[in-house]
Amino acid sequence: MENFEYYTPTQVVFGKKSEEQVGGLIKETGCKKVLIHYGSGSVKKTGLLDRIISSLKEEGVSYVTLGGVVPNPRLSLVYEGIELCKKEKVDFILAVGGGSVIDSAKAIGYGVANEGDVWDFYEKTRTPNACLPIGVVLTISAAGSEMSNSSVITNEKGWLKRGCNSNYCRAKFAILNPELTMTLPEYQTMCGCVDIMMHTMERYFTKVTPMELTDKIAEDLIGVVMKNAKILLEDPKNYEARAEIMWAGSLSHNGLTGCGTEGGDWASHQLEHELGGMFDVAHGAGLAAIWGSWARYVVDEDPKRFAQFARNVMKCTNTGDDKADAMEGIREMETFYASIHMPISIGELGIEPTQAQYRELAEKCSFFGKRTIGVVKKLTKEDIYQIYKNAQ
Amino acid sequence: MENFEYYTPTQVVFGKKSEEQVGGLIKETGCKKVLIHYGSGSVKKTGLLDRIISSLKEEGVSYVTLGGVVPNPRLSLVYEGIELCKKEKVDFILAVGGGSVIDSAKAIGYGVANEGDVWDFYEKTRTPNACLPIGVVLTISAAGSEMSNSSVITNEKGWLKRGCNSNYCRAKFAILNPELTMTLPEYQTMCGCVDIMMHTMERYFTKVTPMELTDKIAEDLIGVVMKNAKILLEDPKNYEARAEIMWAGSLSHNGLTGCGTEGGDWASHQLEHELGGMFDVAHGAGLAAIWGSWARYVVDEDPKRFAQFARNVMKCTNTGDDKADAMEGIREMETFYASIHMPISIGELGIEPTQAQYRELAEKCSFFGKRTIGVVKKLTKEDIYQIYKNAQ
Repeated sequence: MENFEYYTPTQVVFGKKSEEQVGGLIKETGCKKVLIHYGSGSVKKTGLLDRIISSLKEEGVSYVTLGGVVPNPRLSLVYEGIELCKKEKVDFILAVGGGSVIDSAKAIGYGVANEGDVWDFYEKTRTPNACLPIGVVLTISAAGSEMSNSSVITNEKGWLKRGCNSNYCRAKFAILNPELTMTLPEYQTMCGCVDIMMHTMERYFTKVTPMELTDKIAEDLIGVVMKNAKILLEDPKNYEARAEIMWAGSLSHNGLTGCGTEGGDWASHQLEHELGGMFDVAHGAGLAAIWGSWARYVVDEDPKRFAQFARNVMKCTNTGDDKADAMEGIREMETFYASIHMPISIGELGIEPTQAQYRELAEKCSFFGKRTIGVVKKLTKEDIYQIYKNAQ
Repeated sequence: MENFEYYTPTQVVFGKKSEEQVGGLIKETGCKKVLIHYGSGSVKKTGLLDRIISSLKEEGVSYVTLGGVVPNPRLSLVYEGIELCKKEKVDFILAVGGGSVIDSAKAIGYGVANEGDVWDFYEKTRTPNACLPIGVVLTISAAGSEMSNSSVITNEKGWLKRGCNSNYCRAKFAILNPELTMTLPEYQTMCGCVDIMMHTMERYFTKVTPMELTDKIAEDLIGVVMKNAKILLEDPKNYEARAEIMWAGSLSHNGLTGCGTEGGDWASHQLEHELGGMFDVAHGAGLAAIWGSWARYVVDEDPKRFAQFARNVMKCTNTGDDKADAMEGIREMETFYASIHMPISIGELGIEPTQAQYRELAEKCSFFGKRTIGVVKKLTKEDIYQIYKNAQ
């Protein structure tokens, strides 16, 4: 196994009514002025925003608000948030929402705490040295951004979706109340489940000899999400199932499932980022649509690993033939995605990229031929094009 | 499941040669004067202490040293450390060793950062409000103190062994190099494995409806430790096995295996603490000696849970009879302990307490009748006495 670092400083407060602690948690940090950052009006409709504001007022914490974050969060709103924070002397950002809101909050935090254009950090021409402290009240189990070191932003200029990773942006606290996710539509809930599974699968597929303990945790986590996703299809208000998925979401992306695996593959995420940037598809759905094509394209690089996945996660019979079992595992995963009403092709995403657009996706995803993606197989621009095409 | 908090801020640096980073990690904290705290001379003999001092010197960090920590670490040395730190204006404590050294370092840290007698925190008559920052270079996989919030100290006056838990003492960083554990004698290695398993089992046996994800992580973690303990019996220098056990040790006691379980039982630990305090037995061996007696005494409170343990961890056949399977699981665990040369009775610890001493153990363990211990079954002084006697 590989040497690794593991750093998850986020204080998790998990369970019913946990959002009532938000004012106290911010007050403990000593910060004075909070930006409450959120997405659509749903946090207003459900009364969550009011409850949070009450808690802040109770603790004497002042605040300003900035809503309007959309899925694939936009750089323009990040710029607006940075200006607002500077003007209002904000020293803490509270993200109330899912991954898009948290990622936008992190980008604003970088922008306030560092000089220059924040987009540089996402283009990787500079690295951040600080971030405003971030807190999270999570309303969607999916991105794992509440405990992760990552943030992904979409630049409307060219519709580029890019990520920035650093420990500076790790949230000080994350309030996880599974009840807050109960009003999500089925499609969003299932997209979230795919995203959680994929954060673990990206780390699972790697070229190094993995750590057995990490493998087992990863395999179990994926299995728990699959089982509870099925429960939520029938019974979306099931608290226990919501809780299992919510906690799995945080553990899937806080680093635990990657200990000793040297980072993981992440090609599927890169492939989806371009799709999401160009066509604004839901991230989880995009991942489900592309994964099978990626897996079939790279399986020959490591049939043993794919066979282990098939047997331990998808519960396929061990026939003794790694390649055959690997292929069966890929099919079974697609069958599962379909069973939770997720797309398993680009067409099922409801989009029909033109030939030129497929070429453009491959150009952008390979940074115009300047990088390869993936670890199981290093994918060139041409490989990327083929995977997109095979997924159509 | 229950609401829970999860907070593990310790930065883990895991792998070969990771101890070379110690100077840099301390320098990053901005601290100026380090107490290097260690146990017997083995860290001198192996050259580890020299390597650490080199790293500190390279980074321009000054230091003093205090060795002499023994298993079941003594309050008198803690007092000595507190005086030394105050005199030398120490602002960071580096524990180089296993759980005893780390726990002693935490106690010194409490003593320096708070007014009054540090023993009060262990007697639970006061709670600490701060602790000096602690760093760890781990040389024994066992106690999990490198990521935990706990510290256990033995007061020679009355040979009382008492614990103090708070987030203040969580280590800033933990350097985990599995190679550093390779020179441990087999007995200590196996004691460590029992301790790791028991940290997870204490949390596993609980009265609340557990979280499935937590259960699966716990079951796998115990299984990984059992498998790799057997490997180390034959091949004590096996790096991969040492690494699996070392990482399992940290995860077993950082809170992960208790999420949603409301704390766990901990009676076996309390029972062992008195044994360790009075007879100075190795902690892991004491736990192995007492667990079977505890399990048989309480199994009727929750045969279903013990049966799940038997089937999922001990891989016992599911006969459909919970009680029968539960008893088989307890037997199988004892068989395993015996197979790694651990005692499964108090006699096998090499001690023969008198009747009066058994009574004294029960008196002390129940705080002279003022508390019960355990959650699966709340154990009174009389219950405690019976469990000790049944284990003799």
